[in-house]
Amino acid sequence: MTRPIDQRRLRVGIVGGGRGAFIGAVHRIAAELDGDSLVVAGALSSDPATAAASAADWRLARSYASFEEMARTEARLPDGIDFVIIATPNHLHLPVARAFLESGIHVMCDKPLALSLDEGCEFARLVADSGRLFGLAHTYSGYPAVLEARALVANGTLGTLRKVHVEYLQDWLMDALEQTGQKQSSWRTDPALAGSGGALGDIGTHAHHLAEFITGQTVQSLSADVTHFVPGRRLDDDANLLLRFSGGAKGTMVCSQVCCGEENDLGIRVYGTRGALEWHQLEPNTLLFKPAGGAVQVRRTGKGFVSAEALAATRTPAGHPEGYLEAFATLYRSFAADVRRVARGEMPLRSYPGVEDGLRGLAFVAAALTSARDASRWTSLRD
Amino acid sequence: MTRPIDQRRLRVGIVGGGRGAFIGAVHRIAAELDGDSLVVAGALSSDPATAAASAADWRLARSYASFEEMARTEARLPDGIDFVIIATPNHLHLPVARAFLESGIHVMCDKPLALSLDEGCEFARLVADSGRLFGLAHTYSGYPAVLEARALVANGTLGTLRKVHVEYLQDWLMDALEQTGQKQSSWRTDPALAGSGGALGDIGTHAHHLAEFITGQTVQSLSADVTHFVPGRRLDDDANLLLRFSGGAKGTMVCSQVCCGEENDLGIRVYGTRGALEWHQLEPNTLLFKPAGGAVQVRRTGKGFVSAEALAATRTPAGHPEGYLEAFATLYRSFAADVRRVARGEMPLRSYPGVEDGLRGLAFVAAALTSARDASRWTSLRD
Amino acid sequence: MTRPIDQRRLRVGIVGGGRGAFIGAVHRIAAELDGDSLVVAGALSSDPATAAASAADWRLARSYASFEEMARTEARLPDGIDFVIIATPNHLHLPVARAFLESGIHVMCDKPLALSLDEGCEFARLVADSGRLFGLAHTYSGYPAVLEARALVANGTLGTLRKVHVEYLQDWLMDALEQTGQKQSSWRTDPALAGSGGALGDIGTHAHHLAEFITGQTVQSLSADVTHFVPGRRLDDDANLLLRFSGGAKGTMVCSQVCCGEENDLGIRVYGTRGALEWHQLEPNTLLFKPAGGAVQVRRTGKGFVSAEALAATRTPAGHPEGYLEAFATLYRSFAADVRRVARGEMPLRSYPGVEDGLRGLAFVAAALTSARDASRWTSLRD
Amino acid sequence: MTRPIDQRRLRVGIVGGGRGAFIGAVHRIAAELDGDSLVVAGALSSDPATAAASAADWRLARSYASFEEMARTEARLPDGIDFVIIATPNHLHLPVARAFLESGIHVMCDKPLALSLDEGCEFARLVADSGRLFGLAHTYSGYPAVLEARALVANGTLGTLRKVHVEYLQDWLMDALEQTGQKQSSWRTDPALAGSGGALGDIGTHAHHLAEFITGQTVQSLSADVTHFVPGRRLDDDANLLLRFSGGAKGTMVCSQVCCGEENDLGIRVYGTRGALEWHQLEPNTLLFKPAGGAVQVRRTGKGFVSAEALAATRTPAGHPEGYLEAFATLYRSFAADVRRVARGEMPLRSYPGVEDGLRGLAFVAAALTSARDASRWTSLRD
Repeated sequence: MTRPIDQRRLRVGIVGGGRGAFIGAVHRIAAELDGDSLVVAGALSSDPATAAASAADWRLARSYASFEEMARTEARLPDGIDFVIIATPNHLHLPVARAFLESGIHVMCDKPLALSLDEGCEFARLVADSGRLFGLAHTYSGYPAVLEARALVANGTLGTLRKVHVEYLQDWLMDALEQTGQKQSSWRTDPALAGSGGALGDIGTHAHHLAEFITGQTVQSLSADVTHFVPGRRLDDDANLLLRFSGGAKGTMVCSQVCCGEENDLGIRVYGTRGALEWHQLEPNTLLFKPAGGAVQVRRTGKGFVSAEALAATRTPAGHPEGYLEAFATLYRSFAADVRRVARGEMPLRSYPGVEDGLRGLAFVAAALTSARDASRWTSLRD
Repeated sequence: MTRPIDQRRLRVGIVGGGRGAFIGAVHRIAAELDGDSLVVAGALSSDPATAAASAADWRLARSYASFEEMARTEARLPDGIDFVIIATPNHLHLPVARAFLESGIHVMCDKPLALSLDEGCEFARLVADSGRLFGLAHTYSGYPAVLEARALVANGTLGTLRKVHVEYLQDWLMDALEQTGQKQSSWRTDPALAGSGGALGDIGTHAHHLAEFITGQTVQSLSADVTHFVPGRRLDDDANLLLRFSGGAKGTMVCSQVCCGEENDLGIRVYGTRGALEWHQLEPNTLLFKPAGGAVQVRRTGKGFVSAEALAATRTPAGHPEGYLEAFATLYRSFAADVRRVARGEMPLRSYPGVEDGLRGLAFVAAALTSARDASRWTSLRD
Repeated sequence: MTRPIDQRRLRVGIVGGGRGAFIGAVHRIAAELDGDSLVVAGALSSDPATAAASAADWRLARSYASFEEMARTEARLPDGIDFVIIATPNHLHLPVARAFLESGIHVMCDKPLALSLDEGCEFARLVADSGRLFGLAHTYSGYPAVLEARALVANGTLGTLRKVHVEYLQDWLMDALEQTGQKQSSWRTDPALAGSGGALGDIGTHAHHLAEFITGQTVQSLSADVTHFVPGRRLDDDANLLLRFSGGAKGTMVCSQVCCGEENDLGIRVYGTRGALEWHQLEPNTLLFKPAGGAVQVRRTGKGFVSAEALAATRTPAGHPEGYLEAFATLYRSFAADVRRVARGEMPLRSYPGVEDGLRGLAFVAAALTSARDASRWTSLRD
Repeated sequence: MTRPIDQRRLRVGIVGGGRGAFIGAVHRIAAELDGDSLVVAGALSSDPATAAASAADWRLARSYASFEEMARTEARLPDGIDFVIIATPNHLHLPVARAFLESGIHVMCDKPLALSLDEGCEFARLVADSGRLFGLAHTYSGYPAVLEARALVANGTLGTLRKVHVEYLQDWLMDALEQTGQKQSSWRTDPALAGSGGALGDIGTHAHHLAEFITGQTVQSLSADVTHFVPGRRLDDDANLLLRFSGGAKGTMVCSQVCCGEENDLGIRVYGTRGALEWHQLEPNTLLFKPAGGAVQVRRTGKGFVSAEALAATRTPAGHPEGYLEAFATLYRSFAADVRRVARGEMPLRSYPGVEDGLRGLAFVAAALTSARDASRWTSLRD
């Protein structure tokens, strides 16, 4: 016997993310963090033994050997899952999503959406046809300081935007880690599993999403210099780009997985005619605001003077730092609220990244690769 | 029917922490974060209506109007709670703990332990007599960088310690907030509910614990200048202290809740004959290590070169910041593992702060108040 | 009667830099700071009254109404100047330099070298024909941390360079300051006085020089997006560029004078296969070194572990910050030493930027403008 | 023939500071930096050969074998020095000052003023009797950000001050450097040459001066724990202090020369009822201002919004960092202006530290040592 949906935690399933994966546990923590949901079922690995062992680690009520079986079974259970998390390598995003969406189960999916822009278009049609909810894990848009940044742009505090500089720098692929058999690097450097973009797909899509999310403008065209610095690597591990935005701003993007000494340095600076802002994910509770003619302000999360949007995404008092897991949880909180809305027959708010954001990310990757192949020619993003 | 303890999440109850409290949700998130435990029952407020409403917010399976009833009932249920969290104001720590410990239920308790050193001694006897597990929420010792700091001291990297400077600065009580009826400040400035220490008890005990935790030395004696800057306040809101440590180090502590502009700035610097370190809770994933004669090193959590202790407390790859909730969760993870050990008949490891740490914190507060009343005379901490 | 050159300070003249100019006093301080030289003569303004008043402010021994007269007269005086400083707007660099070089007087000149690459070539021939010393004020290469960076690259500590990101951001031209009659902005936005580059010439040449100076590689080609954001401005005030270096590194440059809230933020990051470094002029005594696999190191100037080059450019013990004026003075110190060498009949070392650096800067500006006019096409720098 | 004083640079002599000394060149640069003065004469060492060689290094016009001879001779020369700089170890401050003051020559002296409070009192009488100008090199009060801090306190922006935390940390004496014969450490650890205070005298007096300078309050009483950590050292190398200020503020001071990894970290935080500020000498162009209820502001020097006092002490545009030498030069600029005023028969402004500041510093050292000898008893500073 199961309690009404508003009196119980949502039941969640997960595909992928078993032993050896990093992102699986992250999804589980994020989904459960606000007490809305509980991961109860999983097809945690394509290897049945790993799947079973991983499920035992997590003390799941139900473990499946395949996602197809899981989708079929859960859809029929009286206490089946309310939504599924897709935490697999990219090539499985679409087939797994199809299985669950066609079984009537909402989907929260890791990024990038799909292997290619074409596959992404197919994905978008699938989601639209399903009538189910679909969320995409552009985690960084869940940070309170990012929401504050977006609010400052939206309410005109920055004036007209002129410059946007975004970068996402890592070093974990600076050597040929994939040749050691390491799991994370192996699939991310394999076009069949990761898609057409390497660093562009894995982290460039995050940087692209962040820039569009904060500015409220879209990247209209770009000029890209795309490289793989590590010999033998089959996908890009580095890209430098010039950007032009729909609202007239210009900018640059650097995304690289070979920048020695950089952990996971996603950062953005936005300059307008009346103010500017700067944010770095490594110290995510700090947003610098630079008003024209005034002193730079350190806008910390949890303070009374930040926007309602930023405060709503903050769980702790000022000075009790939140981080990556909490940002991720903010996405899940919004998604779970929509799941409940749909269950109650209400309209979902869709206040989290969705399939359209995924499509734009794939268009960004495609444009960057096209530009790079053509001597960094300015290339428009396909709408 | 309930699964064996190793195949299920622990069931957790909570006393206090309902609507209007900040620390209740923090305990819940922290207890559940690693997937070990699930909060299922609560006596969330001494006001029955608030208790019921709060339990509904959290979708608890069982809500109680009083902690006494909860202790009695849960102890008899076949699927009763495995441990209880005490998230009440300080004056209830002992009575609530007594109710659960005497019902055979393990206890994780907020700090400071009790209203006074005498009450703390009674508490310690109670815990010892109960044979049950007891954890104390000195959250900051759960940060990976703090564990790294402790490891660097313990393995001799710093040489012989000479100086320890610890401080804990906030500003939220810089005005007479308690006179507005605000709940958090009201009980914290009321000696009957908070105990003999104001800032000393609320945050000084954290600073004291952190200094002892990292250095592996105890504060032997102190000289304190204790103040309440806000007129009419009945407890201290500020203290400056000179410290002497058991191993010969000397130092200072500043703890204050009236330092304008400071959010929750717990920081520590430890200087030895061969190296030094510095940590600030506001940017908790960074530990500065200062080797004699060399460049300062920025030791970030999640990197391969940090200690096993620090890595074990890290959930995300380098550059994916963790924060306060994760530090707290690390304490709960250790506590939960002990609950399982005891259930299996094994010896608990007790690798988290316990009643002895609480006693030392109360001895610190008592010594500081004694010193301050006697012209900052050097005063030993009662063992 | 004047003492032998090695027993006295060098006598220095200056052209430009009178009242209302910022850079004149900077040159004077820098030239005199190490006790090598003394500014004694000047043609401080093209306006005779301003020239005289400015000379009185500075208590100069000799003031001239024109640089031509100054060159003629000083060349004949028994205690005439040993070298001249050119601190005028760009359009006067060449004529002033010609007057002094042809009078046999060494020249230290502000940057950029000239109005255009063509004029720069003429300038280079003039310098070569004169047989006199010529220094160019690429001040930032005088910082100890920059010398340390260069040394770390040169000795292979970084391995093979992969990425170079340099930026120079200011905000002082974010509005149409030149329309208020403000002197500094007026000539810098006037093509007849400043040359073909606006921000590109004024600060882009600094960024370009810094990148080449540290990496030991030259910028081989670039793709530029060049903008004037302020309506009515006749020269660029902003540029985003993709760069390719002679040694195979790739990178970006951003130079802008419309980035709200940025004072004078020249910064560079260089990534190699074994290490990386990062420097920001705003906190110039700090160089971050990021060894592969290790903790980031904070290399501060004046410490025993930095290179001989960096130590030699440091005047104070560690922790006594030096700044912009000292960096500038380091250039003058090297230049003055060369003046003495030449006077003694020795070979000059020319260990400061010279006319070739100036030419390369103009080639950079020309290439950027060419690229921008042609849809950011990759454009080689003319050798 | 010499020009009138307002049409020429002041002529300056220096005692001490020859080869092997660090502070001599610093004084010379600072005295000359603004073009007001020129060091022309010196008794640079008590060793005649060193004195002559050092004078040749500096290309001085006149070198003396003793300060007595220098004082006598310069007083009689038609183009004798306008003031003298005392850059000797502490024990010579008084005798050198006496020689010059009694010869009618103004004195700028290094700190601390004298060996003891008693000697300081004698010094003060000497200065008063001489009718000559006397400046004391509390360099740090010359920083623009320190002047800004003082202005913010003085104009009430911080409200009533509650807390002052000042610290001055170095590591250069963390080992027994004086036992290696190193000159700087040898005299600074010798009571006969340095006086009664070690770290207290050398850097504690700076911290004390800074705190009083910024707050406009005097240290009324203190409780001190004073230590020498290095075995065999004859003077303190470390002190922790509790402070009480004349205006009711309370605070702490830490001064130490054994804090491993700290270069020269002088820092101060001042908390009031309406705002707070924080400054660190290592990044001296940044002042943090923390208004109650608002975002922390980064007040950088050279910006239009800082006070007139701070702007007047700034030589470069915003973002062109100034440092220690410039701060020192600001003291000399004020002193030189007073020398000219006196020469013109005007009243001097005495807007730089003087003998009274030196006396208060010695009273601070004496009180700290008295307190430390008496179990850190609260001790008043002798007026």
